[in-house]
Amino acid sequence: MKHSNDTFIYRELYNNLKEDILSFKYDSNEKLPSKREMAQNLNVSVNSVKTAYEQLLEEGYIYTQERKGYFIEPLEKLIVEPQVTNTVTTSTHQQEQQYRYSFSHMSTDITQFPVDTWTKLMKQVFKHYSHRLSAIPDLKGPIELRQAIAKLVSYKRGIQCNAQQIVIASGTNVLLKQIMDVMDDDSKIAVENPGYFRFRDILQKTKRTTLPINLDDKGISMSAIKSGKPDLVIVTPSHQFPMGTIMPVSRRIDLLNWLTKTNGYVIEDDYDSEFKYNTDNIPSLYSFDKSDRVIYLGTFSKTLMPGLRLSYMVLPTSLVTEFEHINNNVIPDFSMINALTLYLMIKDGHYERYIKKMSHFYAAKRAKLIEQLKETFQHLIKIHDTNAGLHFIVEVKTDYSYDDIEARAVSHEIELYTINRFTVEPVHDQSAFKTLIIGFSQLKIEVIPEAVNILRKVLID
Amino acid sequence: MKHSNDTFIYRELYNNLKEDILSFKYDSNEKLPSKREMAQNLNVSVNSVKTAYEQLLEEGYIYTQERKGYFIEPLEKLIVEPQVTNTVTTSTHQQEQQYRYSFSHMSTDITQFPVDTWTKLMKQVFKHYSHRLSAIPDLKGPIELRQAIAKLVSYKRGIQCNAQQIVIASGTNVLLKQIMDVMDDDSKIAVENPGYFRFRDILQKTKRTTLPINLDDKGISMSAIKSGKPDLVIVTPSHQFPMGTIMPVSRRIDLLNWLTKTNGYVIEDDYDSEFKYNTDNIPSLYSFDKSDRVIYLGTFSKTLMPGLRLSYMVLPTSLVTEFEHINNNVIPDFSMINALTLYLMIKDGHYERYIKKMSHFYAAKRAKLIEQLKETFQHLIKIHDTNAGLHFIVEVKTDYSYDDIEARAVSHEIELYTINRFTVEPVHDQSAFKTLIIGFSQLKIEVIPEAVNILRKVLID
Repeated sequence: MKHSNDTFIYRELYNNLKEDILSFKYDSNEKLPSKREMAQNLNVSVNSVKTAYEQLLEEGYIYTQERKGYFIEPLEKLIVEPQVTNTVTTSTHQQEQQYRYSFSHMSTDITQFPVDTWTKLMKQVFKHYSHRLSAIPDLKGPIELRQAIAKLVSYKRGIQCNAQQIVIASGTNVLLKQIMDVMDDDSKIAVENPGYFRFRDILQKTKRTTLPINLDDKGISMSAIKSGKPDLVIVTPSHQFPMGTIMPVSRRIDLLNWLTKTNGYVIEDDYDSEFKYNTDNIPSLYSFDKSDRVIYLGTFSKTLMPGLRLSYMVLPTSLVTEFEHINNNVIPDFSMINALTLYLMIKDGHYERYIKKMSHFYAAKRAKLIEQLKETFQHLIKIHDTNAGLHFIVEVKTDYSYDDIEARAVSHEIELYTINRFTVEPVHDQSAFKTLIIGFSQLKIEVIPEAVNILRKVLID
Repeated sequence: MKHSNDTFIYRELYNNLKEDILSFKYDSNEKLPSKREMAQNLNVSVNSVKTAYEQLLEEGYIYTQERKGYFIEPLEKLIVEPQVTNTVTTSTHQQEQQYRYSFSHMSTDITQFPVDTWTKLMKQVFKHYSHRLSAIPDLKGPIELRQAIAKLVSYKRGIQCNAQQIVIASGTNVLLKQIMDVMDDDSKIAVENPGYFRFRDILQKTKRTTLPINLDDKGISMSAIKSGKPDLVIVTPSHQFPMGTIMPVSRRIDLLNWLTKTNGYVIEDDYDSEFKYNTDNIPSLYSFDKSDRVIYLGTFSKTLMPGLRLSYMVLPTSLVTEFEHINNNVIPDFSMINALTLYLMIKDGHYERYIKKMSHFYAAKRAKLIEQLKETFQHLIKIHDTNAGLHFIVEVKTDYSYDDIEARAVSHEIELYTINRFTVEPVHDQSAFKTLIIGFSQLKIEVIPEAVNILRKVLID
């Protein structure tokens, strides 16, 4: 075999020697031929042998004794487990299901996203903030972005806070875990039922006692909270997820007063308050609080897109020091490139303009979808169209069970979620009306009639 | 007071009524003037009153009874905690310290980063993968990137794996937490001492028993492992962090054999193997393993930049199903935009070219720095220059203690880490030689003489 260059010769020599040593063709402590001898034996250059010997030496296959030469390192035989097959069963987990139409509440429409602006701003970030990208990111997020968010939540949500209270992370799920780190291990956490099931899942993983609290017409039930005595309550006051209820001021006051008396905290998950149609924004619970009880969660997953992975929280002043102390050695998980680009996007007003544009865009989709649903389902549908967010709740009269509906949606290739996804226990199938979560962000306005028609096939035909 | 438009009138009316209701200027259940009366009283349009009433109704300040009018909702008084001051003590935590020169091992040089290519590829991602950005990211990462990484680790690290075994996350710290989720609660984890202190910190947070294991000349001590009986061992075999030792093949075999016998696992933290100077890459521990015992961790924080927040692991086939099951409801925390852009960067060969370029770049810095250190410190320095990674270890003869050195580095405005940062217990100050971790990625080649000169002032003068 002829080699055209030294690298090939060296690699082959190295690999052959390595295999021979591992398969015990040499004895332990056996002396290898000198570099010169080996080169002559194999008719290759001394240099190739030298490189191979050095690599084997560095990896510990051989050892050297000064003026005596190279020797084989004594090695144990590597155990091979015969039963291990190096194959993975192809799981169907999270494999991309192809849908014709999606009624998902989880996505956003990014067809209008200002990509050119975004990449232009990102270039500025590389130019002006390169030392920030090349080092480990600031624990709570870049101070510029935190200051920009402090202004944003002041103006939009009436939240008066200091940038020090703000923490950026790659999603509200991550923020919830961080909050759990500052809560006692034995703390009890109340969650809304129905509610955001992923939060329940995280709480269970962190081994917290979770109290699912049913909703009444004002939102999370105060009597259930008073009897359950949680240390922390998680609510979605501006637009209950998924039911859409707005928590009225009376319930807000009752909840805050109870927390103040019991020294508890509340997480306000303000996941979609940026989109509000017809009426004005609902003020945040945080803006009401006079006793430092509210942890506010906000996200850019709805206003921009989930793929960005940027969310934030506003901590009560009393938790800031503890948070910093506990996370002293933590490397944050958000992308600094995205965080700083977002900062420029907010600073230069692009963010506000984009939200305004998308509000009109979503309002039009929403109106068209509601009109189409009414026309198609007539008396068979009740639409609970709270003027907010990217989804609403409908009840449809149908003979199908929830399981039927889910299976039929899959076979008709539409993405559709029922209330069963969000309740702790499956909902009793007795009722003639079935509750569905209808998201509209992913539907193109021109396909709405056809999408609703398929929905009718799934639910009625 | 005169208003130029209806929105101002409505906002003022709404705010005034809200304040009056909250300060109990109205009685509970008191009837409000009709819209017409209120409009006449205030000399504003009925429409402005209507908008204000509707907003107050939506937020629950008032309620309505059909054909009877609007009434004040009975509210509790909101408790105000007088002791709460809404200010945060300005902490010095992670505030950006300005350094003249950095010997940090944690950063990378991004002056050569192909920003235009990156943003061009990102535009392609927005164009061709928009549905992937607008939905919740795939749990284990985009399949395209996982396939590209499978090829990369096969070619570069001799790792034969399936894309199904690969998990993308926003950092190896996040991956370690995910691994802990599939390990039993009472599992014992062995870590290298000195070693990567952030991993120890995470293990302590997840309440695992951590066994710090001292190093011998071959790396982590087998006798200590055999007596400590950990369920999982975390090692850095290609370039021990921070000491730089390469784990020789004999130790690799001993470790793998012991794990196979005890049914344990090992995490191979391959944090900087892409940069190897003079000699060839050290093969991965994973490529040796014949018994499905190795969890391989890789990262783009060193090859590209920490601000990207993209790392990955290769799971043993036996852990894949368990991982997917446990994380069924988990929203991953990496940025999909960055992940897909990175995929295109790898696919189109830009990534390989960039690593090659940076290898030469870093090799030159490293050579210059070593030369300068030898020249400046002469017989006072021992340099352990393993030909790998972005840092090396030096021992410097000095009368200063580790605490002195750290304080003097700060006052001379250089970023410098001693071995004390990485050991479980502070190192005894007795020895005349002090061990320092010298990173070179952030030093511009032309400032190296001056930076080393300041280092001399910190350590000797």
